[in-house]
Amino acid sequence: MADPVEFFFDFSSPYAYLAAMKIEDLVRVRGRAVAWRPMLLGVVFKAVGGAPLTEYGIKGPYSVHDFARSARYAGLPYRMPEPFPIATQNAARLVLVVERAAPARIGELVRAIFPAFFVDNRNINDPAVLAEICASLGLDAEALTPAIEEPGIKDALRANCEEALRRGVFGAPFMFVEGEPFWGNDRLPQLDRWLETGGF
Amino acid sequence: MADPVEFFFDFSSPYAYLAAMKIEDLVRVRGRAVAWRPMLLGVVFKAVGGAPLTEYGIKGPYSVHDFARSARYAGLPYRMPEPFPIATQNAARLVLVVERAAPARIGELVRAIFPAFFVDNRNINDPAVLAEICASLGLDAEALTPAIEEPGIKDALRANCEEALRRGVFGAPFMFVEGEPFWGNDRLPQLDRWLETGGF
Repeated sequence: MADPVEFFFDFSSPYAYLAAMKIEDLVRVRGRAVAWRPMLLGVVFKAVGGAPLTEYGIKGPYSVHDFARSARYAGLPYRMPEPFPIATQNAARLVLVVERAAPARIGELVRAIFPAFFVDNRNINDPAVLAEICASLGLDAEALTPAIEEPGIKDALRANCEEALRRGVFGAPFMFVEGEPFWGNDRLPQLDRWLETGGF
Repeated sequence: MADPVEFFFDFSSPYAYLAAMKIEDLVRVRGRAVAWRPMLLGVVFKAVGGAPLTEYGIKGPYSVHDFARSARYAGLPYRMPEPFPIATQNAARLVLVVERAAPARIGELVRAIFPAFFVDNRNINDPAVLAEICASLGLDAEALTPAIEEPGIKDALRANCEEALRRGVFGAPFMFVEGEPFWGNDRLPQLDRWLETGGF
């Protein structure tokens, strides 16, 4: 099997939510898996400049409108969370915990955490909420959730952020196919053609 | 016939080039025409913040890469012009001159000016180049080109920029379908569905 498609994301990005719900199905058709790479946009924005779209002056109201319309276009439920954005490091760390403990379940977990925030307006950085999500998937919440505090997990998230920066990531979702970079949910069609044709 | 789709653009935007080459065919299928609205991104960026994508730090190299890949994806020729960006007010004014003199020819004119810059690397702000483009389309270059200096034409371009700002435009291409805003070449699929369904 060819290399997995790397998917760098932050749970507070609406466009990452839309892409995350589709990416695994999309790449599976092309014989690929997804390498889920949680990171923190706050760290990225601090390093390279940038801010949440909703804070970009006149772009803000358009972005809020476009989030919802893009979700309808994608056929996905969506409700603008409030507050937005929120810290997401615990959710990101849980992905890294599950990557270690039950790697085959990461996709499911990501597709449960994202709508908890972008549909149900839950605080997905709250360990109790994360434990509930784990339990709903039949994952061992009592073993997994506390592990988000382990130094090795914190280091792994930090390493993801550093790698993202080193590789030119400046937003989310940010995907790589054998080094070819694709930024944004609206680049999924190009990514798909890239996988189909081997590059164009 | 329903209202035309308004297409705000600047001739120095690569994504506006890609969208401009397709928009008329795309909306015609849905029973619509295009209202071409040339404007100046420099004026917009000065008013609302913003800069050419190539000047956005780490986003710059990705953008240059994405311009070319997006052109290949669209099946359109493309060569990154040098210098980039350039002033485009004369090209924008020529569109307004032709709008007055031969409105049925604007689409053709726009589709000739854009590739002169983004494929042939010509200075499309040079009146001599614009005259040549007019002549190549069988338009009366000697009558039309000097009219770009008329105060009424300069005012019309200024009015387009002011209207763009008033209506929330912050980049290009920026399109409106009965007030519904669509920013960017990558929103053409949503715009198309909007036309098809009457809104979603």
